[in-house]
Amino acid sequence: MKHNKLWAKDSANQNYLEIIEKFTVGKDKDFDILLAQYDIIGTKAHCTMLTKIGFLTENENIKIQKELDEMYILAKDHLLTINDGVEDIHSHIEFNLTQKLGDAGKKIHTGRSRNDQVLLAIKLYLAAEIKEIAQLSKNLFERLINLAETHKTALMPGYTHFQIGMPSSFGLWFSAFAESLSEDLEVLASALSVVQKNPLGSGAGFGSSFPLDRDFTTKELGLEKMNINSVYAQMTRGKSEKITAMGMSTVAATLSKLAYDICLFSNQNYGFLSFPSGLTTGSSIMPHKKNPDVFELIRAKSARIQSLPNELTLLTNNLPSGYHRDFQLTKEIIFPGIQDLKDCLQIFEFMLNNIQIKEDILKDEKYDYLFSVEKINELVMNGATFREAYREVGNSIEDGSYSYRNDDLKHTHKGSIGDLCLDEISAQFAEVFQKFK
Amino acid sequence: MKHNKLWAKDSANQNYLEIIEKFTVGKDKDFDILLAQYDIIGTKAHCTMLTKIGFLTENENIKIQKELDEMYILAKDHLLTINDGVEDIHSHIEFNLTQKLGDAGKKIHTGRSRNDQVLLAIKLYLAAEIKEIAQLSKNLFERLINLAETHKTALMPGYTHFQIGMPSSFGLWFSAFAESLSEDLEVLASALSVVQKNPLGSGAGFGSSFPLDRDFTTKELGLEKMNINSVYAQMTRGKSEKITAMGMSTVAATLSKLAYDICLFSNQNYGFLSFPSGLTTGSSIMPHKKNPDVFELIRAKSARIQSLPNELTLLTNNLPSGYHRDFQLTKEIIFPGIQDLKDCLQIFEFMLNNIQIKEDILKDEKYDYLFSVEKINELVMNGATFREAYREVGNSIEDGSYSYRNDDLKHTHKGSIGDLCLDEISAQFAEVFQKFK
Amino acid sequence: MKHNKLWAKDSANQNYLEIIEKFTVGKDKDFDILLAQYDIIGTKAHCTMLTKIGFLTENENIKIQKELDEMYILAKDHLLTINDGVEDIHSHIEFNLTQKLGDAGKKIHTGRSRNDQVLLAIKLYLAAEIKEIAQLSKNLFERLINLAETHKTALMPGYTHFQIGMPSSFGLWFSAFAESLSEDLEVLASALSVVQKNPLGSGAGFGSSFPLDRDFTTKELGLEKMNINSVYAQMTRGKSEKITAMGMSTVAATLSKLAYDICLFSNQNYGFLSFPSGLTTGSSIMPHKKNPDVFELIRAKSARIQSLPNELTLLTNNLPSGYHRDFQLTKEIIFPGIQDLKDCLQIFEFMLNNIQIKEDILKDEKYDYLFSVEKINELVMNGATFREAYREVGNSIEDGSYSYRNDDLKHTHKGSIGDLCLDEISAQFAEVFQKFK
Amino acid sequence: MKHNKLWAKDSANQNYLEIIEKFTVGKDKDFDILLAQYDIIGTKAHCTMLTKIGFLTENENIKIQKELDEMYILAKDHLLTINDGVEDIHSHIEFNLTQKLGDAGKKIHTGRSRNDQVLLAIKLYLAAEIKEIAQLSKNLFERLINLAETHKTALMPGYTHFQIGMPSSFGLWFSAFAESLSEDLEVLASALSVVQKNPLGSGAGFGSSFPLDRDFTTKELGLEKMNINSVYAQMTRGKSEKITAMGMSTVAATLSKLAYDICLFSNQNYGFLSFPSGLTTGSSIMPHKKNPDVFELIRAKSARIQSLPNELTLLTNNLPSGYHRDFQLTKEIIFPGIQDLKDCLQIFEFMLNNIQIKEDILKDEKYDYLFSVEKINELVMNGATFREAYREVGNSIEDGSYSYRNDDLKHTHKGSIGDLCLDEISAQFAEVFQKFK
Repeated sequence: MKHNKLWAKDSANQNYLEIIEKFTVGKDKDFDILLAQYDIIGTKAHCTMLTKIGFLTENENIKIQKELDEMYILAKDHLLTINDGVEDIHSHIEFNLTQKLGDAGKKIHTGRSRNDQVLLAIKLYLAAEIKEIAQLSKNLFERLINLAETHKTALMPGYTHFQIGMPSSFGLWFSAFAESLSEDLEVLASALSVVQKNPLGSGAGFGSSFPLDRDFTTKELGLEKMNINSVYAQMTRGKSEKITAMGMSTVAATLSKLAYDICLFSNQNYGFLSFPSGLTTGSSIMPHKKNPDVFELIRAKSARIQSLPNELTLLTNNLPSGYHRDFQLTKEIIFPGIQDLKDCLQIFEFMLNNIQIKEDILKDEKYDYLFSVEKINELVMNGATFREAYREVGNSIEDGSYSYRNDDLKHTHKGSIGDLCLDEISAQFAEVFQKFK
Repeated sequence: MKHNKLWAKDSANQNYLEIIEKFTVGKDKDFDILLAQYDIIGTKAHCTMLTKIGFLTENENIKIQKELDEMYILAKDHLLTINDGVEDIHSHIEFNLTQKLGDAGKKIHTGRSRNDQVLLAIKLYLAAEIKEIAQLSKNLFERLINLAETHKTALMPGYTHFQIGMPSSFGLWFSAFAESLSEDLEVLASALSVVQKNPLGSGAGFGSSFPLDRDFTTKELGLEKMNINSVYAQMTRGKSEKITAMGMSTVAATLSKLAYDICLFSNQNYGFLSFPSGLTTGSSIMPHKKNPDVFELIRAKSARIQSLPNELTLLTNNLPSGYHRDFQLTKEIIFPGIQDLKDCLQIFEFMLNNIQIKEDILKDEKYDYLFSVEKINELVMNGATFREAYREVGNSIEDGSYSYRNDDLKHTHKGSIGDLCLDEISAQFAEVFQKFK
Repeated sequence: MKHNKLWAKDSANQNYLEIIEKFTVGKDKDFDILLAQYDIIGTKAHCTMLTKIGFLTENENIKIQKELDEMYILAKDHLLTINDGVEDIHSHIEFNLTQKLGDAGKKIHTGRSRNDQVLLAIKLYLAAEIKEIAQLSKNLFERLINLAETHKTALMPGYTHFQIGMPSSFGLWFSAFAESLSEDLEVLASALSVVQKNPLGSGAGFGSSFPLDRDFTTKELGLEKMNINSVYAQMTRGKSEKITAMGMSTVAATLSKLAYDICLFSNQNYGFLSFPSGLTTGSSIMPHKKNPDVFELIRAKSARIQSLPNELTLLTNNLPSGYHRDFQLTKEIIFPGIQDLKDCLQIFEFMLNNIQIKEDILKDEKYDYLFSVEKINELVMNGATFREAYREVGNSIEDGSYSYRNDDLKHTHKGSIGDLCLDEISAQFAEVFQKFK
Repeated sequence: MKHNKLWAKDSANQNYLEIIEKFTVGKDKDFDILLAQYDIIGTKAHCTMLTKIGFLTENENIKIQKELDEMYILAKDHLLTINDGVEDIHSHIEFNLTQKLGDAGKKIHTGRSRNDQVLLAIKLYLAAEIKEIAQLSKNLFERLINLAETHKTALMPGYTHFQIGMPSSFGLWFSAFAESLSEDLEVLASALSVVQKNPLGSGAGFGSSFPLDRDFTTKELGLEKMNINSVYAQMTRGKSEKITAMGMSTVAATLSKLAYDICLFSNQNYGFLSFPSGLTTGSSIMPHKKNPDVFELIRAKSARIQSLPNELTLLTNNLPSGYHRDFQLTKEIIFPGIQDLKDCLQIFEFMLNNIQIKEDILKDEKYDYLFSVEKINELVMNGATFREAYREVGNSIEDGSYSYRNDDLKHTHKGSIGDLCLDEISAQFAEVFQKFK
C-alpha cells in the first residue's frame, strides 16, 4: 500500500508511516463518509470564487463543478469511499480531481488550508443535523400535544419528593414535555446561529496572502454570515461542536425525564400506563417480565448525549489558540451522539403512538390526601386566611379525622388541569421552530 | 432557639428537628441573601394579583406593598438577614409581614407554593445576572477591540500544533477573542430567553384551584412570557440553571483560552508580552519570579465554570418529574460560579489595560519558516499550480536551500492581518448585545 | 492595611496589590484554617531535619518547636486565625516565628518552598480525612449489618427494570449496601496509599542544593514512603486530590443508591418503609406531606461528590508539568466535598437507626408473578429442562392460567435470602478496613 | 429473518420486534465479540457446578465442555460470530449447544440469569484488560527509566507558572513520569481487586432457589473471592466499569501530561527535543511543518479516557438498585476506551524510543535567572538567614546588578538532579506491579 499523503516528505520511512498512520487516522475515515457531501459543497464554492479572482479559468471550473456534482450524488448517499492509502475524504476528492483533470486539480487548494476546509464541512454538517433534530423534535412535540388533548380529562396523582401531592392529569403531564421541547429548541437555535457561518478563507487560522473574496464564498454557500477573524475562525473548531452538544443535551434531558416517568409509571406499584407486549422485552429467567427496555435505553442514550458537552470541554480546554490535532476527536465524540439523538426522537414518537393509559387512577384510597389542598382552598373561599386553613387541615390529618375528596375539580387558571393552553404552547413552539428554516 | 417552620407539625421532636435542620438547610441561607430582593418583587406582584381577584383588600395590599418596599431597600444591598430559627428568606418575609400586619400576612401565600415562589426568585436573579455578565463581556469586548486597533501592525508568529506556522498579528489575536465573545453571547441570550418567563401560579407543579390571573402577574413582573404548563414550570428548576451555566461556560471558555495564551506568551521562551511587575506575583524561594497568577486563576476559575453544566446534569439527571429537594443544591453550584465569572471578566479587562506588547518579534531567525507559505503563493502568482509550488518549497526546506522572508506582507482579504474588519465585528456584537436589553 | 507578602517587591504599587490580592487569595484563607495543624506538623519535622544537617542550632530548634506546639493547640481546633494582610496560613506561621524568635524564624524556610510545604500539608490533611471517612463508613456498615440481621426474614419484592421480578428480603437489601461499602473502601485505600507519602524536600519541584535528609523527615512525619522524584512530587498536586475524590465518589455512589431506594420505597405506591414524622419535612401548601428530604439531600450531595473527580480533571488537565497557580483551587473543590461526605455518612447512620419496616408486603396480589421463577424451578426439580419449564410457565401467564405462590421459600446458596453470610461480609470489611490503621 | 429471542412471546408482532431490536441491540454485538471467550469460561464453570449438584449428568457435561472448548478457540481470536437474528453472544452459545446436544443445552441456564452471566463475562474481561494495561505500563516505565539513566546529566530549565524557575534535568523529567506510573497502578490495582470476584449465582440479583455451590464455581473460575450478596452482585454492574475507568483515567493523566510537555518542548521557542521527521506529520499548506500529531492524539485520547468515569457516573447515577437496561451502554463507553489506552501506551513507548534530546540548553542567557536560588543558597551557606539572602538576591535582580551562574550544580538529596534514585523508583514499581500477577 502506497501512502499518498499531501504533506508526505521523501525522507519519511515507509514503515514508520504505517504505524503512525494507523494511530493517527484511527476511526476518522468512518466519520469522513458523513462529511463528504459537505466537503464537496464547500469545494464547489471555493473553486467558483477562485475562478472569480482569476486563479482558475472558467473552463477549468466548469469541469471541476461537473466532477464534483457527480461525486456529490454518491456522497449524499454515503457511498463515496476513500481509497486505501488515502488519508481522508478531503485528500480523496482532491486526488480524484487531479487524476481526472490534471493541473486544474492541483490548483484547487490555492488559498485554502485543510483547516478551514474541514471546519466548513463540519459546520455545514452540524447545521443540517441540527435542522433534522429540530424537525424530529417537532414530530414528537405534535404527538405529545395530541396525547394531551386526547387524555385531558384523565386524572393522575401529582408527586413531589416522590410523595403524593396534588391532583394532576395526563393532559398536563403530556403537554409539559411538549412545552419542554419548545424551550430546548431555543438553545439548539443558538447553536444553529453559531454554526451557520462561513470559515472558508481563514486558512490554517491566519488567513492568506491571496486576494480571497470571502463575501462571495459566503453567499455562494447560501450563508448569511462568516467567521470574520481568521484566528477566531479556527477557534470555532471544538466550540461549534460543544455548543451544538449543549443544544442536543437540552433536548436529551427532556427525553430522559419522560422516559424515566414512563419506566416508573409502568411498574406494578404505579400501574398508570402500559405498552403492547410486543413493544416490551422479556427476561431470560422470569417468564412474566414485560420490561420497558426501549425507555431505559432512551434514558441511557440521553445520559450519554448529556455528557457530550463535558467530553468536548475536557478535550479542548487548556489548549492555547491555534489548531491542535486533538480537535480531530471532536468527530468521534459528537457524530455518534447526533445519530443517537435522532434515533431516540424517532422511536420515542413511535412508542408514544402505542401508549395505553389507565383511567380512574385516583379512585384508589391511597390517593385521598391528594385533595388536602383543595380542602384548604375551600376553607379560604369561606373566609379563613391561608395559614389558618393550612393548620386546620394539617391537624385533622394528624389526628386521623381528615376525610375529603373532590372528584369535581375546578382548576381554571392558565396551565392548570382545567386550562391546558395547548394552542398557546403550540404557538410558542412555532415561534422558535421558524428559526430552523 | 424555637424553630418556626411553616410546615412544622406539633408531633415533631425538637431535638430531631435541629439535627435535620442543620443538615437540610446547610449553606442555603447564604444564597437566600442574594435572592431576597427578587422574592420581594415576586411577592409584590403576587399580592397585587390576589387583590385583583379578591383575596386581599385594596387596603391590605397597600400596607403589604409598603412593608415590602421597605424590606426591598435592605434586600437590594444584601442586608436583609434571616432570623435565627427561620428556615429561609421566603419564610422570613412572610413571618415579618404577619407580625406587622396580622391576617393580611397570613393570606399572602394563598394560591402560591414555595416551589413556584422560589422558582420565580431564581429566574429573576438569573436574568439580572445574565444581563450583568453580558455588560461585563461588552466592556471586555471593547478593550479587546481597542487593543486590536492599537496593535494592528505588530506582527507575531501564528502557531498550529504548537509549531510555528504563518505570520499573525496582535491585531488579529486580540480581535479574535472579541469576536469570540460575540458568539458566546448567542448562547447566553438563549439562556436569558429561557429564564425570563413567569412560573408563578404553577404552585407545587400542579397549579391551583384558585382563579389566579397569571397573565396579570406576568405583566406586573415586567415579563413577556410565562411558563404555561404547571408541570413544566416545575421542570424548569435545575434546567434554567443548567442552560444559564451553558451560556456562562461558553464565555468562560473564551476567557480561559486567552488567559492560557497570555501565560504562554509571557514566558521567557516566547516573550511576546508582559505586565507591570506589580500585577505579577512572586515566589517564596525564587526572587526573580514574576508569575502571571491572575491569568492562571482566571484559567482555573474558567475551568470550574465550565464544569457547572455537568455538575447540574449530574444533580438533576434521572429524577422523574416533580420537585425533589435535590434541586436545592443548584444554588450552591451556580451562584458562586456567577460571582466568579463576573470577577474574571472585570479583572481581565483591568489587566489588559496594562498589557505590554513586544515589537519586532518576527525579526528573530527562528521564525524564518513562517514565510514558507508566502513563498509558495509567490510561485503560484507566477504561474505554478499550488501543489507544484508546495512541493518545490518543501524540497528546498528539506535540502537546506530555503531562504525567504517577506516583511512587507500583503494580506488583504476580510479577517486577515491586513483587514481586521473591527467595525464588522463590533456590529455583530451590537446585534447580539441588544438581546440583553 | 500593609501587605506582608514574602515575595513582595518594593516596586509593587500598593493599590494594584489590593486588587490582585482580592482576586488571587479569594476563598483560600477559609481552607487554610483546615490546613494549619498539618502545616505545623510539617514545619516541626522540617526544622528538626534542618537542625540535624546544621542549619539551625539545637537551641533554636527547641524554641521553634515550643512555639509551634503552642500554635498547634489552636490550629487543631481551627482557632488559628490569619492576620489581615497576611497572604496565607503558611506565611502567618513563619511571620509569627520571626516576630517571636528573630533570626531563627528567618531560617526555617531554608531548603523548602511554599510548593512542597503546601503539598505536605494537603497530603497530611487528606490522609486524616480519608481515615475519618473510613471510620464513618464502618459505623454505617455496622448499622446496615445489624438491620440485615434484624430484618432477615422480612420479604420484599425484588425489581429489575422497575418491574417486579423475584422475591427479595430486607436482609438481602440492607446487607447489599454493607458489602458495597466494603468494596468502596478498596478504592479509598488506594487513595490513602497515594497520599501517605512525603513530598518535603522537592522544593518548587526541582529539589534543592542544600543537603536535605529526606529519609529523616519522612520518618519524623511518621510516614513510610516519600515521593522520591522532585518533579514527580509536584505532579502529585491535583493528582492526590483527584484520587482521593475517586475514593470518595465510590462511597458516595453507594449512599446515593440507598438514599434513592429509600425515597422510592417510602412513597405511597411502594410503602415498604417509613420514618418517624419528626425526621421528615413538610410542604408550604400540602399539610399531609412527610417528605424524605434528608435522603434527597444525601442523594444530591452524593451527586456533587461524584462530580469532584471530573471537576479536578477539568482543572488540571492539559497543563504541562510544573506548578501552576490553577492548583490553588483544588482546595475549594475537594475540601467542602470531604465535609459533605462526612455529614452524609453520619446522618445516614442516624436516620437508619430510626427506619421502620413494613411486614408482609408480598401478601398483596400484585406481587403474585414474583413466584414464576419458583414455579419453573419446581418443574425443573421434577425433571423438565430449564428452557421447557420456562416456556410452560410463560404460556400459562400469557393465557391467564398461571397461579402459583410459595410463601415458604427455600433459598439456600450463599448470598441468597436464606443465607445472608453476614459474617463473611463483615470479615471482608474488616480485611479492607485494616488498611486505614 | 426469524428472531430467536429466548424470552420472545408468541404474541409479539414480528414487525414491531424488528424496530425494537434495531434500537435495543444497537452496537452491542460488536462488544459481545470481545466478551465471547469470557462467557465460555463462565459457562464451563457453571456447567461443571451444575453437574456437581446433580442438574447435569457427567456425560452431558463432558459433551458440553468439549463443544465449549471448540468455540473457545474461535472466541479467543474474536472469530466467533453471532448468527443473524440472534440477540447476543450469550444466546448464540446457548442455541449452539442446544442445536448440537439437545436437552443438555436446554439445561445449562438452570440456576443462572443473563444478568449474572453477563456480569461474570464483563468482570473476567476487565480483569484481563487491566492486567494487560499494567504490563504495557511496565514497558513504558522501563523505557522512561532507561531514558532517565541515559540523559541524567543533561540539564534543562525547570518551570513553574510557565516561567523559568530552577535548573532541572532530563533525568529528573523522564523519571518523574516513571514514578507517576507506579502510583497510577495503585488505583488500577484497586480496580483489579474489585473486578476479580465471582458474581455467578446471584441470578437476576436475588439469587436462586436451586442449591448452587458458589464456592465451587469461584474456585473453578480461578478466583479467590465472590460477590457474596446477590443484590450487591448486581450493584457491581456499572460500578466495576467505573472503578476500572478511574484506574485507567489515572494512567491516562500521566500520558497526557508527558505528551503535553513533549508538544511544548518540541516547539521552536523551546526546542528541547525532537523526533525523526518520519514520526511527525505535515501540513496541507505549510511545507516546513513537522507536527507532533502522535502526541496531540495521545493527549486527546487521554482526555477521552479521563472522561470515562464521569460518563459512567452520568449513566448509572440516580437509578435505584436492581438491573436496568441502561447498564448495557457501559460496554460502548468503556470497551473502546480500553483499546485506546492500550494503543496510547504502546505508541508512546515506540515514540520515546526515537526521542532526540538537545544538549547544553542552559547555556542560553535567557536562563540566567534559573540560578538565583543557587545564589541564595550560597549566601545562606556563608551565614545569612534564608529570608535575608532572598531579599538581597531579589534586590540585585530588581536593580539589574544580578549576575550569577553555576554550571557545576551540587544537588545531592534524594530525588534531586544529583540523586535520581532510579533503583528506588523501580523497586516501588515492582512492589505495586506484583498485585497484577
